[in-house]
Amino acid sequence: MKFNYKNSSLLEESEILKTKDSLELYTKHLAKVVEEGGYSFMEASLNLPDDVRMLEEVKKLSSEKKTDNLKYIFVVGIGGSNLGTEAIYEAIFGRLSLAKKEYPKMIFLDTSNPKLLFDAMDIVKEDVSSKDEVLINVISKSGTTTETIANFEVLYAFCKEKFGELKDRVVVTTDKDSKLWKASLEREYSVLEIPKNVGGRYSVFSAVGLFPLDIAGVNVSELVVGAKNMIDICLEFSDENPALISAVLIFLHYKSGKNVNNNFFFHSELESVGKWYRQLMGESVGKEKDKDGNVINAGITPTTAIGSTDLHSMAQLYLGGPKDKFTTFVSVDFDGSDSGIRVPEELEAGELVSGIYGKDLNQIMNAIQKGVKTAYKKNERPYAELILKDLKEDSIARFLQFKMMEMMFLAQLMNVNAFDQPNVEDYKKETRELLG
Amino acid sequence: MKFNYKNSSLLEESEILKTKDSLELYTKHLAKVVEEGGYSFMEASLNLPDDVRMLEEVKKLSSEKKTDNLKYIFVVGIGGSNLGTEAIYEAIFGRLSLAKKEYPKMIFLDTSNPKLLFDAMDIVKEDVSSKDEVLINVISKSGTTTETIANFEVLYAFCKEKFGELKDRVVVTTDKDSKLWKASLEREYSVLEIPKNVGGRYSVFSAVGLFPLDIAGVNVSELVVGAKNMIDICLEFSDENPALISAVLIFLHYKSGKNVNNNFFFHSELESVGKWYRQLMGESVGKEKDKDGNVINAGITPTTAIGSTDLHSMAQLYLGGPKDKFTTFVSVDFDGSDSGIRVPEELEAGELVSGIYGKDLNQIMNAIQKGVKTAYKKNERPYAELILKDLKEDSIARFLQFKMMEMMFLAQLMNVNAFDQPNVEDYKKETRELLG
Repeated sequence: MKFNYKNSSLLEESEILKTKDSLELYTKHLAKVVEEGGYSFMEASLNLPDDVRMLEEVKKLSSEKKTDNLKYIFVVGIGGSNLGTEAIYEAIFGRLSLAKKEYPKMIFLDTSNPKLLFDAMDIVKEDVSSKDEVLINVISKSGTTTETIANFEVLYAFCKEKFGELKDRVVVTTDKDSKLWKASLEREYSVLEIPKNVGGRYSVFSAVGLFPLDIAGVNVSELVVGAKNMIDICLEFSDENPALISAVLIFLHYKSGKNVNNNFFFHSELESVGKWYRQLMGESVGKEKDKDGNVINAGITPTTAIGSTDLHSMAQLYLGGPKDKFTTFVSVDFDGSDSGIRVPEELEAGELVSGIYGKDLNQIMNAIQKGVKTAYKKNERPYAELILKDLKEDSIARFLQFKMMEMMFLAQLMNVNAFDQPNVEDYKKETRELLG
Repeated sequence: MKFNYKNSSLLEESEILKTKDSLELYTKHLAKVVEEGGYSFMEASLNLPDDVRMLEEVKKLSSEKKTDNLKYIFVVGIGGSNLGTEAIYEAIFGRLSLAKKEYPKMIFLDTSNPKLLFDAMDIVKEDVSSKDEVLINVISKSGTTTETIANFEVLYAFCKEKFGELKDRVVVTTDKDSKLWKASLEREYSVLEIPKNVGGRYSVFSAVGLFPLDIAGVNVSELVVGAKNMIDICLEFSDENPALISAVLIFLHYKSGKNVNNNFFFHSELESVGKWYRQLMGESVGKEKDKDGNVINAGITPTTAIGSTDLHSMAQLYLGGPKDKFTTFVSVDFDGSDSGIRVPEELEAGELVSGIYGKDLNQIMNAIQKGVKTAYKKNERPYAELILKDLKEDSIARFLQFKMMEMMFLAQLMNVNAFDQPNVEDYKKETRELLG
């Protein structure tokens, strides 16, 4: 993973370095968290990739549950319980995986929307003939997430009606000793633990993400290696630490009035990575109060754009609109290799666009991306660039881990707690009263 | 469709009415556009729902091309050429339509991403055995959209290799006399016209949207009726005109520093409606210059949220973060009817959440939504509410038409051109040079 910004940030280098220096102590603290290991610190998620016992447990349960005829993995979870899994699943399998013949397919039940549940039940009705063809992974840190519990009850009752009891096709992932944990033990569902200090948005490399991804055929060992390598890089107090520098850039641009942070992915299969980052940034630094209890109403609005798709919908705003955004372009090094798809040299519709015939799609996307960056520069729109090696497990994991550490540094700069989400209670309280 | 704001906007009613009054002349102008009919005005899209000849042509071609064994409609288009179609398709058929057994399925090729094209070709390889099972709809207003032409050439060559010549399975939608129009006539593809003054983001009720939607089984006559009815409502210079009032609210909040506009949909199948609106707002009012040529760098960043999904990722920012957003909640009247899915009274996992057992999913979503609105109010976050009758064709069309007219009024208030996108040229020029 390469991180570049020097050509494009519009900030003084001295200001960047000064701000970076203010994070020296916190960088040391993170190094200590990793050195001591375990899950006692707030930043406990940093030790997930080192948790060999957890990985073994995940793989063991996965091999028990992965029947030869498995067709559908229903991930029943919401927010931090499914966004990381969906991000990696889509990055590896693409946006059209549901239309293809390959099984198993993963279906995410991430809200109690009737249409979504009707469709999920239709799929079971049409395409599932025995309970071994489905697996239900219920994921809720607290164990009391309204939508998740409601969806599980609906889906379970439907499947039970069709196949009879299927407790052995349920895996629950939750905090140890949550109500759901206890209920699961009583009912003999398989249970996987989320360490207490690992919050939803930092939990992708816990059993929350690793179990369903392993079942779906993702190489989770590679994920863990990629994450671990990125942690090592981001614990260095150095100008080469991408998480540190990225946090500084986002912070300084925020301070200068740029309240929108745009992740611009040049691969459409990374759209759900963008959704994962929305939660990471939205919840981690969107805060009413700072660490000292002062009301600050701080926060940056994360947005996602997909190249080249969104150039045809948002480029006008990005290039002509207000200078209220800091952008990170994310792509694989297109120059490096051919995609294997070339626009034919023999034309069906005649020469309508110059310069594309006989070219590999990577060359075309590369030219578009370079054109966009040049236009950003000319229009004084600041950006950083992240270049991934490829879109395989190791690279995706590095990216996610980099972003989680960037967020810890950013929260430190903003003097807010990166790990809580107190205002979510504001609407939950009202909802509970209405549900009686 | 009901539109409410009085309880929640935080603005003085007198200011709203004063600003509304400034739009009297423009409202009259729009009424004149519709009265005169035809496609000569910039606001020509308002006359699409009255274009009986166009609708007949679309339906005639659709019935010719709709084979009994049609499986895949490939919509090859980007931005305004596919976002409206995808919005309506997903609203009607849901997010899991690709996983279901029903045909035809629509596949959108909206960027030249190698993985996306490989998957599309895999689907043809695995699941298509004759050319009558596919239809390729190439949509490009200019006729020279790089990604669209590249994708068409790749897909056509692949299908031709497999099935032989399939010119009769290609329908092209473009401006009359574009290079693509002429090439299509020479090659004997079927061609549908986009009226010159109907820009991509206002073209959903032209052949751009109506043709593929009709083939897919959407009732396009109902779409047109819904759009027409909404136009009548939004031509009234009155406090009851939702497009007028919504534009005023967005404008006044923007003037008071709220540079983010959030559409918060309480139905996950409306996510692509959010993407359609991103383009509509991003391109229509994101402008470097005003109508008088002054550099203003104006614009509002449109974002989309899905309830209840995003309450578990973004609510913390929305409720605790900076007061830089104006929100429109969009939902069907949940109180009105049951969804048909109830959380069972006999519990599988025991009582984990109180108040949900035996309840219909609509009741639960209703409580969540009400809880959110109460929390918004307590936290002084301004919003308006849109309540749709249902999620059928008439209602979706009303919503889209309402938003297109809101955008015309908003651009008028901001003194910018709602119909051009000059800065998109900034990156296209650079890209053309790189492609040589």
